[in-house]
Amino acid sequence: MSGPVLEHALIERVAGAFRGSPLQLNGRHESDAELLRLPGTEAVLALTTDLVIEEIASGLYRDPWLIGWMAVTVNASDLAAVGADPLGILTSLTLPPDPPDDLIAGLRAGIGAATEAYGLPVLGGDVNRAAALAVGGTAVGLVPDGRPLTRIGARPGDRLFTSGPVGLGGAFAFLRLVGRGGGQAFDYRPLARLREGALLRRFASCCMDTSDGLIPALDELTRRNRCGFELTGRWDDALHADARRVLCGAGLPPWLALAGPHGEFELVFAVPAARVGPMRDAADANGWAPIELGRVTGEAGVVRPGPDCEPIDTTWVRNLYQEVAGNPAAYLSELLKSAKR
Amino acid sequence: MSGPVLEHALIERVAGAFRGSPLQLNGRHESDAELLRLPGTEAVLALTTDLVIEEIASGLYRDPWLIGWMAVTVNASDLAAVGADPLGILTSLTLPPDPPDDLIAGLRAGIGAATEAYGLPVLGGDVNRAAALAVGGTAVGLVPDGRPLTRIGARPGDRLFTSGPVGLGGAFAFLRLVGRGGGQAFDYRPLARLREGALLRRFASCCMDTSDGLIPALDELTRRNRCGFELTGRWDDALHADARRVLCGAGLPPWLALAGPHGEFELVFAVPAARVGPMRDAADANGWAPIELGRVTGEAGVVRPGPDCEPIDTTWVRNLYQEVAGNPAAYLSELLKSAKR
Repeated sequence: MSGPVLEHALIERVAGAFRGSPLQLNGRHESDAELLRLPGTEAVLALTTDLVIEEIASGLYRDPWLIGWMAVTVNASDLAAVGADPLGILTSLTLPPDPPDDLIAGLRAGIGAATEAYGLPVLGGDVNRAAALAVGGTAVGLVPDGRPLTRIGARPGDRLFTSGPVGLGGAFAFLRLVGRGGGQAFDYRPLARLREGALLRRFASCCMDTSDGLIPALDELTRRNRCGFELTGRWDDALHADARRVLCGAGLPPWLALAGPHGEFELVFAVPAARVGPMRDAADANGWAPIELGRVTGEAGVVRPGPDCEPIDTTWVRNLYQEVAGNPAAYLSELLKSAKR
Repeated sequence: MSGPVLEHALIERVAGAFRGSPLQLNGRHESDAELLRLPGTEAVLALTTDLVIEEIASGLYRDPWLIGWMAVTVNASDLAAVGADPLGILTSLTLPPDPPDDLIAGLRAGIGAATEAYGLPVLGGDVNRAAALAVGGTAVGLVPDGRPLTRIGARPGDRLFTSGPVGLGGAFAFLRLVGRGGGQAFDYRPLARLREGALLRRFASCCMDTSDGLIPALDELTRRNRCGFELTGRWDDALHADARRVLCGAGLPPWLALAGPHGEFELVFAVPAARVGPMRDAADANGWAPIELGRVTGEAGVVRPGPDCEPIDTTWVRNLYQEVAGNPAAYLSELLKSAKR
C-alpha cells in the first residue's frame, strides 16, 4: 500500500549520502543488479553482491551444500532479473578458525554445482576467518546490447507473470523455523532463472526476482512503477504444489507461503499485451511456460488478490518480519491474525 | 625461500576444483585483482573482493571511520596493483542488530571519504545483520588498452621499487596489538596507489601491493617469477620514519615492521633497467618519487637483504602468524628469536 520499507530505511542510513557514478544506469532499488555503462562500448555491465549469513544464523540453511548453492544462486538470480549473460562470480567465504573437512567439502560442492549450472565460473574470491560462517559473492554479467531489464517500465494493461510456481521459499522457511508439521519435508534447491531473464529482455516491461517472496516483490514493483496489480481469480495456480501441501497440511491459508521474507528466486515480470503472444511463443520454443498472475492497473500501490477483492496491505506484510524482530512464531501469528480480518 | 604458503593451502582446499573462465587472463595468485577480457572489446575488466573482519575481531581496527576507509582501500589497492582505472565499488556491510548511530555515521564517513579520494563511487551493495561487524566490498576497474599489470614478468637485472615508504602497517599493528610503548601513536590511514598503478602500466614488468607487508609481497613475487631479489645496502631508506621511530623506540629492529601480515598498501614493482629513466621522469611529472629497493636476480626464491648477506627466510616469515595461531605476542617473540639467529 504505502509507507516506508523498513529494510530501505537502514540502507538510507548507511548509504544515503554517497555520490553515484555517471556511468550507472539505475538508481537505488530500481533494478536487481547494478547497471554500469562500459566506456567505449554499447554493452552494460551488471554487478550484484549478496551474502548468506542471516539464513545460517537463524538455522534456515544448515547443510553446507545448500549454503554453497544458495550463495551462488542469490547472486545469479539478480543477474537473471536484469537479463544479463553471466560472466563469473567472486566468492567471499568467512570460515570458522579450523573448518572441518565436511564443511569445506560441502560448501565447495554446492558452489561448484551452482556455478556449473549457471555457467557462472568462479573468477576468484576472498577467504576470512571468524566465529560465524558466512558465504557470499559478487556476480558479474554483461548485457551486450545495452538494454537490461529493470524494475521500472510497467504500464496499466500490461499482463503480470511469474517464471514458475512460487511459495517454495516460504514453505521451506515455515517447515524449518516454525515446524508445525502436517506436510512432509521437500528439497529446497531453487534455480536462478538466467535463461528466462535473457529471453525476457526482448519482451518484458519490468522484472524482479522473488528472493524476498512474491508479495514483497509486488510491493516493490508497485512503488517503482506507481502502479497496482489485479490478480486473476486463478492466480493461486501459481502456488507451488509442495508449498500448498505444506501450508494446507498445517491448516494454514496457502498464500502465507508468498509473504516472504524468504523466497524462491523465480522472476516476476510484466509484458505489454501486444507482446504476450510472441513472448509465449519464444518461451515455448525454450520449453518454458510462464504463469500468468493478473494485470497491471493504474491504482498506485494497490494489489488486489482478485477482481473486486479488498487490497493486500503489501507494505505491512513486507515490514512484518522486522517488526517482530525476526521471530518466526510471532511472524506467523501476526500473519494469521491479519488473514482472519 | 620455498615450501607451501599456509594461506594458499586453505584457498586450495576451498577452491581447488572450480572450473575457470576462458575470458580470464590470470591464474590464481598471479595478480592482485581478477582480470577478465570483455567480449567484443580490447578492454580488460579488473575485479577484486575483500572483507575487513579479522582486523576488527582482533582489535586492530576499532574506529568506525577507519574501518570504512580500509574496507574501500583494501579493494582499491588491488585495482592499483593491476593498473586499472576505477569504475566503482559494491559495499558489503554486516552490522549488529541495532547499530548505533555513531557506528553508522563513522562507517559512512570513512567509506565516503575513501570513495571520493579514489574516484571509486559506490554503485550499490548489501546490508546484513549479525553479531560481528564486517565491512567489505567488491571493486571494479577497467584497463582500457587490455594490458594490465600482473605479479608476473620480472627478469633478472630489473630494478625493484616501492611506491613509497613501507612499514606503517606493521608498526601500527605492533602499537595496537602488542603495545610495547616507546613510540608515540600515529595516524594510520593508508592511501591506495591508483594513479601510480595506472602510470606503471607503461613501465613495470610486475607489480603487487604490500597489503600483507613487504616481506610477504617479496616472497610472493619470487614464487611467481622464479626469481630472487637483492636489496641494496640502503634499502632501509624505504622504511617509513614513523615505523622506524615506533620500532626503535621499543628497542626492536625496524625491519620487523615489514614482516606482515598487516601492511600499508604501497606498490612493490620491478622495472626493466632501460625503462627506469623514463619511469622516473613520468613519476616526477606527477609529483611522485618511487623508492628503489634493489634488483631482481636469477636466484629463485632468494631474498638477500644486502649484497653478500644471508637470505631472509621469507616463507617462514610469511607463514609465522598462522603458525602461532594469530597470537601477536608469540608472533613478535618468534620474529625476535629469528632476528638474533
